[in-house]
Amino acid sequence: MNQTDCLIDNGTVVTMDGAGTCIKDGAVAVKDGRIKAVGPSDELRSLTAREIIDARGGLIMPGLVNTHTHLPMSLFRGLADDLPLEQWLNQHIFPAEAAHITPRTVSLGTRLSLAEMLLGGTTTCCDGYFLAHSVAEAVDDVGLRAILGQGVIDFPAPGVPDPKQKIRTASEFTAQWKAHSTLIQPSIFCHSPYTCSAETLRAAKQAADKLGVHFQIHVAETQNEARQCRQTNGCSPVQYLDRLGVLDPGTLLIHAVWVDQEDIQIMARSGVGVAHCPESNMKLASGVAPVPDMLDAGIAVGLGTDGCASNNDLDLWSEMDMAAKLHKVHRLDPTVMDAETVLRMATIEGARALGLEREIGSLETGKQADLIVLDLNRPNLAPLYHPYSHLVYAVHAADVRHVMVSGGLLVRDRRLLTIDLDAVIGEAREMGLKIANELF
Amino acid sequence: MNQTDCLIDNGTVVTMDGAGTCIKDGAVAVKDGRIKAVGPSDELRSLTAREIIDARGGLIMPGLVNTHTHLPMSLFRGLADDLPLEQWLNQHIFPAEAAHITPRTVSLGTRLSLAEMLLGGTTTCCDGYFLAHSVAEAVDDVGLRAILGQGVIDFPAPGVPDPKQKIRTASEFTAQWKAHSTLIQPSIFCHSPYTCSAETLRAAKQAADKLGVHFQIHVAETQNEARQCRQTNGCSPVQYLDRLGVLDPGTLLIHAVWVDQEDIQIMARSGVGVAHCPESNMKLASGVAPVPDMLDAGIAVGLGTDGCASNNDLDLWSEMDMAAKLHKVHRLDPTVMDAETVLRMATIEGARALGLEREIGSLETGKQADLIVLDLNRPNLAPLYHPYSHLVYAVHAADVRHVMVSGGLLVRDRRLLTIDLDAVIGEAREMGLKIANELF
Repeated sequence: MNQTDCLIDNGTVVTMDGAGTCIKDGAVAVKDGRIKAVGPSDELRSLTAREIIDARGGLIMPGLVNTHTHLPMSLFRGLADDLPLEQWLNQHIFPAEAAHITPRTVSLGTRLSLAEMLLGGTTTCCDGYFLAHSVAEAVDDVGLRAILGQGVIDFPAPGVPDPKQKIRTASEFTAQWKAHSTLIQPSIFCHSPYTCSAETLRAAKQAADKLGVHFQIHVAETQNEARQCRQTNGCSPVQYLDRLGVLDPGTLLIHAVWVDQEDIQIMARSGVGVAHCPESNMKLASGVAPVPDMLDAGIAVGLGTDGCASNNDLDLWSEMDMAAKLHKVHRLDPTVMDAETVLRMATIEGARALGLEREIGSLETGKQADLIVLDLNRPNLAPLYHPYSHLVYAVHAADVRHVMVSGGLLVRDRRLLTIDLDAVIGEAREMGLKIANELF
Repeated sequence: MNQTDCLIDNGTVVTMDGAGTCIKDGAVAVKDGRIKAVGPSDELRSLTAREIIDARGGLIMPGLVNTHTHLPMSLFRGLADDLPLEQWLNQHIFPAEAAHITPRTVSLGTRLSLAEMLLGGTTTCCDGYFLAHSVAEAVDDVGLRAILGQGVIDFPAPGVPDPKQKIRTASEFTAQWKAHSTLIQPSIFCHSPYTCSAETLRAAKQAADKLGVHFQIHVAETQNEARQCRQTNGCSPVQYLDRLGVLDPGTLLIHAVWVDQEDIQIMARSGVGVAHCPESNMKLASGVAPVPDMLDAGIAVGLGTDGCASNNDLDLWSEMDMAAKLHKVHRLDPTVMDAETVLRMATIEGARALGLEREIGSLETGKQADLIVLDLNRPNLAPLYHPYSHLVYAVHAADVRHVMVSGGLLVRDRRLLTIDLDAVIGEAREMGLKIANELF
């Protein structure tokens, strides 16, 4: 059977496989949503394909994996900047959410975020927000791959006016979406150890385990949080979560900035994944996570943009660039976080942090056909000496030409095929005017 | 006389004037290469314009000012990364320059860089390199505004095989280009205090003063340089330059990472400008310049991308984003380097660092018509609450639609009007293959 659905041909294939294989003049064959073959064009051209996508000498690589987002928050992009985290959260973001977050606005913000992510080559994200059902419906409609967490917090929240219903709401969302789609995995997202009691954290993790889904939590984001945890619980936030029994390979720790060597040993032993969000941590002045040490300990660390209110975009290319450069200057060592390491974080290691490394994160036979094609015919990308270097230090989101998820094309020649972009932007602008009028 | 050459209409005008004026539904009128009027569209529409450019609800703002580039080095973009500065320079960049830098390659690399800069909205740059005559010819041809420095160094260099000729070569270049064009200002660029003797530094500065042009120098870039200077000269690099008498408002200090409070007082007193290059300093792990302290002292600090071999692009949008975020996390204070401060560095303060603040850097009547129009109809730019926030944290180079220098349109609808982009990219690729074949 030499018939395939699609052949992406005439590019340099950056596979991100274990051996770091790059294939000049290569191609990728796709059948039934999966990768049927990866190799030199000469070999793959014997396959009969229903459709051929010409990469025109560009780069063909796995779609990017964004391990931490709050998709609906694109509606609050730039609402409040240059403020301390607590003030930003309590005086601006929480009030804006209380006033404006509804199923309709969640759906709108999600579509806006998906448009930006897809046009920039992100094919998988791991999200946490409230009204996750509305997030899931929008993601399902657009066709991205995602882990979607329903938020759990000990206060009244959008869609969960009575905090007593928080675990039940999360469990119901999870049960409903578990078998719905191969692209969407529901999940339970506890906001943090300082906004969820020990009882809440234990119950949420138990619910996630029972349903066989991922558990996510912001942890050790600020020095203040770490200090207060030591005062209240006599240990670091990571040690606290460990004592509560919520750390295992089904848990994703988000931020993990204020962690020490003992915490890192606990994280490595327990098999948790980490979402590193350098731009958010920098903008909110939270601190610099000891990522090189985490990588040395063998922890799966992916990259996350965080929500648009604290970044202010969903661009994993700038996140890679920033991650590489931040740790170099922080350690005064230009050899840490080299281009290959950082690119792995945005692809296969991000997939591993989410427990998806057998399905996505590299271009290998049998894996999901989640891939992107980059245009090299740009002044910022000539000449080309090392693909990894370009991908981390020189490629911009606008250089992404085609985007495929599970064999389906979602972006062709920089145009979204499953989102009416003008309509979404128009609605987002109207919404923004409404929010601004009420707040200012 | 209500006749103008061009009216840029139907946008939000971000003037960057002293009062921070932003005009919703505004317009800019241009006549004879200068700004004739800035104001509400309603008022300016009474003017008769030969051409109307519709900003389509986007942002109209001053073109960006890149205070430090090495334009021809785009040919070495990504040649060697993730290495210590000395190793990167001595084992990779200097040998590549010795083998490949000729008038033809300098012209090619310059055009490639200008293409990237213009498409990303940069209208002025301050460059330092060898064979500056070839740089100047290319810049003159393309039509950008630039201060162009001929390199001075105590070793044989491209175009200056005999170091004895270095001051003479720089003086001749300067004399030749001084009256050539209003857009180009020649300059003398000493590489650094560790590659130029005291005699060279003094002679170069004297030559610059005599010709009435800018003097530029890399200084205090690495801790090693600062340490060696203290050992050799018994003082910091800035104090050393001060003793040599080369610090005054006609001098631009590039990097200035390892400067202390005493150095900052000297810099403020002498009136030097500073080119802050955060991405280069981060990637080479040079350190974090104390920019907030420099700004507090009233020093004019602009942003620079540095050359493409150490960044690896010429994108001032990511440079702004990185500058804001780097200093916040470095000081664990999210209020430092707010969006307005950083945007001023990329526009009017950058102009001031170069002594050009009376001509460019803001949209005000009588100034040069160096301006850009941004497309807001992008998923990363909706909704819009604060223009400054968007410009620093969310705008990408690809969002630039039109670029005008001195009243002449150089980019229209994202297309270069004075560069054959395909030809330049094609030649740069060929050159890259040649360099790679010889080096690897």
